Amino acid sequence: MTDIKVPLRDMRFVMREMLDTDKHYESLGFEEATPDVVDAILEEGAKFCENVLAPLNQIGDQQGCTWKDGEVTTPEGFKEAYQQFVEAGWPALPHDPEYGGQGLPASLGTIMSEMVGIANWSWGMYPGLSHGAMNTLEEHGTEEQKSVYLTKLVEGSWTGTMCLTEPHCGTDLGILRTKAEPNADGSYAVTGTKIFISAGEHDMTDNIVHIVLARLPDAPAGTKGISLFIVPKFVPNADGSLGERNGVVCGSLEHKMGIHGNATAVLNFDGAKGFLIGEPNKGLNYMFTFMNTARLGTALQGVAHSEIGFQKSLAYTKDRLQMRSLSGTKNPEGPADPIIVHPDVRRMLMTQKAIAEGSRMLVFTCAQLVDITHKGDEEAKKEAEDTLAFLTPIAKAFITEAGLESANLGLQCFGGHGYIAEWGMEQNVRDARISTIYEGTTGIQALDLLGRKVLMSQGELLRRFTKKVHKFCQAEIDNEALAPFVSKLQELNKQWGDLTLHVGGKAMENPDEVGAASVDYLMFSGYTVLGYLWARAAKVANEKLAEGTAEEDFYQAKLKTARFYFERILPRTATHAATMQSGAANLMDLDADHFAF
Amino acid sequence: MTDIKVPLRDMRFVMREMLDTDKHYESLGFEEATPDVVDAILEEGAKFCENVLAPLNQIGDQQGCTWKDGEVTTPEGFKEAYQQFVEAGWPALPHDPEYGGQGLPASLGTIMSEMVGIANWSWGMYPGLSHGAMNTLEEHGTEEQKSVYLTKLVEGSWTGTMCLTEPHCGTDLGILRTKAEPNADGSYAVTGTKIFISAGEHDMTDNIVHIVLARLPDAPAGTKGISLFIVPKFVPNADGSLGERNGVVCGSLEHKMGIHGNATAVLNFDGAKGFLIGEPNKGLNYMFTFMNTARLGTALQGVAHSEIGFQKSLAYTKDRLQMRSLSGTKNPEGPADPIIVHPDVRRMLMTQKAIAEGSRMLVFTCAQLVDITHKGDEEAKKEAEDTLAFLTPIAKAFITEAGLESANLGLQCFGGHGYIAEWGMEQNVRDARISTIYEGTTGIQALDLLGRKVLMSQGELLRRFTKKVHKFCQAEIDNEALAPFVSKLQELNKQWGDLTLHVGGKAMENPDEVGAASVDYLMFSGYTVLGYLWARAAKVANEKLAEGTAEEDFYQAKLKTARFYFERILPRTATHAATMQSGAANLMDLDADHFAF
Repeated sequence: MTDIKVPLRDMRFVMREMLDTDKHYESLGFEEATPDVVDAILEEGAKFCENVLAPLNQIGDQQGCTWKDGEVTTPEGFKEAYQQFVEAGWPALPHDPEYGGQGLPASLGTIMSEMVGIANWSWGMYPGLSHGAMNTLEEHGTEEQKSVYLTKLVEGSWTGTMCLTEPHCGTDLGILRTKAEPNADGSYAVTGTKIFISAGEHDMTDNIVHIVLARLPDAPAGTKGISLFIVPKFVPNADGSLGERNGVVCGSLEHKMGIHGNATAVLNFDGAKGFLIGEPNKGLNYMFTFMNTARLGTALQGVAHSEIGFQKSLAYTKDRLQMRSLSGTKNPEGPADPIIVHPDVRRMLMTQKAIAEGSRMLVFTCAQLVDITHKGDEEAKKEAEDTLAFLTPIAKAFITEAGLESANLGLQCFGGHGYIAEWGMEQNVRDARISTIYEGTTGIQALDLLGRKVLMSQGELLRRFTKKVHKFCQAEIDNEALAPFVSKLQELNKQWGDLTLHVGGKAMENPDEVGAASVDYLMFSGYTVLGYLWARAAKVANEKLAEGTAEEDFYQAKLKTARFYFERILPRTATHAATMQSGAANLMDLDADHFAF
Repeated sequence: MTDIKVPLRDMRFVMREMLDTDKHYESLGFEEATPDVVDAILEEGAKFCENVLAPLNQIGDQQGCTWKDGEVTTPEGFKEAYQQFVEAGWPALPHDPEYGGQGLPASLGTIMSEMVGIANWSWGMYPGLSHGAMNTLEEHGTEEQKSVYLTKLVEGSWTGTMCLTEPHCGTDLGILRTKAEPNADGSYAVTGTKIFISAGEHDMTDNIVHIVLARLPDAPAGTKGISLFIVPKFVPNADGSLGERNGVVCGSLEHKMGIHGNATAVLNFDGAKGFLIGEPNKGLNYMFTFMNTARLGTALQGVAHSEIGFQKSLAYTKDRLQMRSLSGTKNPEGPADPIIVHPDVRRMLMTQKAIAEGSRMLVFTCAQLVDITHKGDEEAKKEAEDTLAFLTPIAKAFITEAGLESANLGLQCFGGHGYIAEWGMEQNVRDARISTIYEGTTGIQALDLLGRKVLMSQGELLRRFTKKVHKFCQAEIDNEALAPFVSKLQELNKQWGDLTLHVGGKAMENPDEVGAASVDYLMFSGYTVLGYLWARAAKVANEKLAEGTAEEDFYQAKLKTARFYFERILPRTATHAATMQSGAANLMDLDADHFAF
């Protein structure tokens, strides 16, 4: 088993050298986020993740969570690790100082989440879901709700969940049935069944704060009749101590393909006491605030599984001796050459590397935009929100799809050994498999991108982004070192606009054209966005090499990976372009009853 | 849970309507393989698979095999199902009547194997591995070996295995270490450790016949010093009864990602009595005979997992109500529309369908060629062998890669429910995951195709095939109904040749160019071969529709699926063509020590 390392050098490259985080934090007035503090977070975080969380990853998979009479026991060591996490103050990092938070930038929270995710995704979901609950309360809770619940979540002594899905509805929340009836004391009695609730029940903390979507008795049908409630496992007393056990019980845990260390709960609400968040019937709007953060959090999962797959398969392929290189023996002393000499093994390694590093650039870019939405001036804020609205579905769906591909390539590098549990590669694939589904499937993200974000803005959100790409290309047009990147990028950038016009035109006649093109459109967009980021990475690397650097190998590797990405990954856009233009007829013509005979 | 159905209508379409099996069997002199017998096999086989094997598939996954003191217990019902299988005479189907076989065509065995695989792949591997052992003995065993071992395998009272892999070598059999030292009685003492032995130990039969690769004491190093041995679990007495327990013991079972119902054994040979097959040091040649059959058998796994994914996700997407169609409500009575109305869900269904049906055409085409290699005249035999040599790596690698994609799409159609064990979709993905690895990984198949088959024949094996495609296109050039297929196919067929020349040219200067292009080359080839087969299927469907038929919906569905394949799957060739031409430098330039920092 390879030990997992947090890729600190690469993280610093993206943060400091590509995205100039130190200046970014300073300009937004994050006074606490000095370079020293950032470094301390990176180093302390990495240490905790490598030494405490990573060793629990396989244990979590093997033991899973166990349910007994409504109580859930997490795998060995999970609870203790959580205690250490809380003692170090990690849950508080990006939250409001008024409620005990450290007031550090959200993007530093993202960085910590990536480190945690690389070490142990299943464990990371417990504090991860809490962040969702905290963000919701910070934005929409009353002062009292914040002081009772948020403070506990921020200190980590309670955790939170997000309860959306029901047995008959996941994507289609408009048809949810959980009801909330007013009690005499101003609270509500919440009744219904929620499923797939991540971190829904566990033994890590004394209390769990469920954030629950439900309908008021007089609510209009559909998505406009959904309200949001706080339903604590134990109802807190006025003095903050734990009061009565509330009527929400974990009915069972799901038996899943992966992420066994996380408890995926069925929660039965039986007249449980709930407290309305914000105004009635606005629950879905509130959820969307949370959802964007959650989607970015899920994008991290793609980065994490790519990174794990890459690190482990790199170590294995340097070690495993099998066959001789086609271009002559490379390891004459040994019985065979290490398999990293074989071009196809390198294709698999480089693909994982290009995906992991490129996706990291995209998530960090988005995380910086989140900072701006919190602390930028009005204009900057608006622009960051728009760019984020555009990039989030791409980041969520593209990175998780690419992460799943990476995880599978990592397994493939191990040959038959990859299929055996002990190496951890098959766990990596199983864990990764959920990421293209939860928080909105790839298909849903694609509709969000093409339908809601691009076409409903008349292409405006796309144009803002392609303008940035265009500007970059124009600025570098005479930079010989970047020539191979810039010309291809310009071409794709133009094609992106043309394809949008093409699909948009057809969609005016037939709305099914949107759904028929959407996933190809999203993947095309994802490859192009990463192309832009890799070109920028190449620019930085070139500059460092021109200046002279002690890390020549590092920057050369960046350049070579950028080249690999442009020559071997970007050509996938050709297929997506052709396919999305083929139209809806080849999908819709076949009668549903004639799919099989 | 959806009941799995054997797709008999589609199988008959491929067999009778595309490949004219009845005439094929008659012309090869398979007198027993009359249309009635073929129909009886299809119907009885389907019944057994649907009623006996399919219900054990999930049980097999959940219970797995258990090891205790060297003995292995298979999941509940597996043993009894095997007994029924033997009583019905299924193991004997395609084998030599002189040793108890039914002498039916190998291709009928393939058809039965597909049915078994769709119902329960893990179970099917027990008799499947036996076929490998039987084929090896039929071809290379002595009369005595055949009468002692083959008869028992044919009647199914013993099963067989193939023991190749060792802990330090899988792909690279040249470095295997298991040794065979001559005993005084003409037998050999076999000592060594074999791993990943499918069906290597179980409780279904009294005896297991291991076919083992090992080295004689004086053997030359490398692949030229490998011999092949029969090592029975119990050494048979002269009268055929079971004699002494041999020195081969199952040390443990692997904990695998999937195919839990099949025992993947570590076998420790400790001076086990073995009997040489054929001549010394020719073991690897003999194994290659077997290997081609095994590779075709593994291709079936891609068909099976596509078919399972397709059937289950089709049923689910017709049933699951979620959101409204973008082009207007389709199910006004219900709270939402069935998700099959959504174009992207259809994209996933149609992809699975096109892969399952197209791959079935390819496997059956290969199976017919196998029949010809057994019973054709010299010239036909040679040609069939060559075509098979060319098509086998394509069938193995392309179909299993496509099958894994299908299985993943099937899971995706279920959303979050796909990730939960009870629906069987995640099992389908886990089971499918091994298929791109064992019997030679996709990378190995690709090297075999491009290096050994295409370039070493100076392109001859490719030209023979592209000539067939060309001939088909020429014959249909004025057929308006086929125009969209024929023009695209002709273009790809030409491009196939051009790409071969391009890569071949570069390979003369740098042998790493072969490995750098090989997987893209294989995938390009696979898509093109399936394009040719889908065009032929379209031709048949068109003819039936022109003639007039009571099954208009069936033939229209074929045409529409062919169109889908050409418009939405074949464009993938563009990416593979571009990528394979990008050369080896982008893979080989990065020093192995600079992949990570």
